Amino acid sequence: MTYCVGLKLDEGIVLLSDTRTNAGIDDIATYKKMFVFEEPEERIIVVLTAGNLSITQTTMSQVIEAIEFPSEDGLKSIEEVPTLLGVVELLGQALSANAMNLNDKLNENGENISACFIVGGQRKGGEMRLFLIYPEGNFIEATNDTPFLQIGETKYGKPILDRVISSNMSLDEGRKALLVSMDSTLRSNLSVGMPLDLLVIKKDDLGSDGYERIEKGDQKFKEMGEMWSRALKDTFDKIKI
Amino acid sequence: MTYCVGLKLDEGIVLLSDTRTNAGIDDIATYKKMFVFEEPEERIIVVLTAGNLSITQTTMSQVIEAIEFPSEDGLKSIEEVPTLLGVVELLGQALSANAMNLNDKLNENGENISACFIVGGQRKGGEMRLFLIYPEGNFIEATNDTPFLQIGETKYGKPILDRVISSNMSLDEGRKALLVSMDSTLRSNLSVGMPLDLLVIKKDDLGSDGYERIEKGDQKFKEMGEMWSRALKDTFDKIKI
Repeated sequence: MTYCVGLKLDEGIVLLSDTRTNAGIDDIATYKKMFVFEEPEERIIVVLTAGNLSITQTTMSQVIEAIEFPSEDGLKSIEEVPTLLGVVELLGQALSANAMNLNDKLNENGENISACFIVGGQRKGGEMRLFLIYPEGNFIEATNDTPFLQIGETKYGKPILDRVISSNMSLDEGRKALLVSMDSTLRSNLSVGMPLDLLVIKKDDLGSDGYERIEKGDQKFKEMGEMWSRALKDTFDKIKI
Repeated sequence: MTYCVGLKLDEGIVLLSDTRTNAGIDDIATYKKMFVFEEPEERIIVVLTAGNLSITQTTMSQVIEAIEFPSEDGLKSIEEVPTLLGVVELLGQALSANAMNLNDKLNENGENISACFIVGGQRKGGEMRLFLIYPEGNFIEATNDTPFLQIGETKYGKPILDRVISSNMSLDEGRKALLVSMDSTLRSNLSVGMPLDLLVIKKDDLGSDGYERIEKGDQKFKEMGEMWSRALKDTFDKIKI
């Protein structure tokens, strides 16, 4: 599996993804699931992927190829699509086409595989937006009421987000919230694994405000996890019922 | 869905279940998912159920009926089975038979429904044990290394258990841990709902040490949830990365 999460705050967007893929517990690999399409002062588009690796890789390869070789009647370049909504529609169509194509062949065996995306970013003259694209290509958008979107192993890291997230928190606070949410997921589920990819996009910057790869032995991340763990245990000891 | 969790500590067993069932978001009902079979100084057997309500109700009805009317060639009385392992085997067979029977009919539509149980208790002369029975009737047992077993919506409440549970904690601490785990699940998933059923069994007591129904407005549970929430937010504010 995978855990990817995107957060849209008043000040900007924070995106975080793990890198573990597995086809069975004995077939684990590391793949980057964060794809950044950036042209400073023009646009930044970030895609996080979860689900079947052949579907997400095929779709992203097609999307990347179409930037250089856009097709008149096929896949357009996401750099040429004038709005972020258009980008999301394009990605959704490519994703569902690849999944449907594969499932037509697999369905004879009764299997069903799928994938989904989180897409965030901003284009010159447009709003900063964050979307979740479902396997069928339909999508939903983050709002002030529900500023975070998750894909993959979403449940372990949801309780902490439900408690601390609000649209008006700072980007630093948002970044920390996503890292704590990821830490909880990493501890409880082997199919989510280090390293992590983290990206912060400031509103109206039309570029990324810092990409970080957080490696397995990262001291700061480890200390944060240990502090959080210790504090949870202390809190647990203190509360009564 | 459902969230049920059982915890086997050195001092005894703690069991907790919610009561929400739903067949769609517009078809919500309250059903007790904790079944207690107790004869003081002889035995205590507790079953928690999750999954398709028709399967769990049918199975438990058959099990309860068989106590009064045991069948020679069919279902025996769980009170007459001499060991807890025997009880678990009996429950597993009844559970899988009902599920298979129903799925034979449903499979024409490509659906598949299932259910599972947590079973804990002790019989005179036997060890205190805690099991999880899968839909197919096979089962696993809680150990010192992995003292808790969960069924239903298990993921939201797992991170806190992973952090605080150990076999040598007191029954009071164990009870608190399960309630905090349930609180996290209740906040993040609508398909799990109040009231709650909680039971503590002291080792070698061969009886329950207190059954509690925690109702929706329960002041203590509410205060615990609020304290936990506040403490999490304070902790979150304090940690750095």
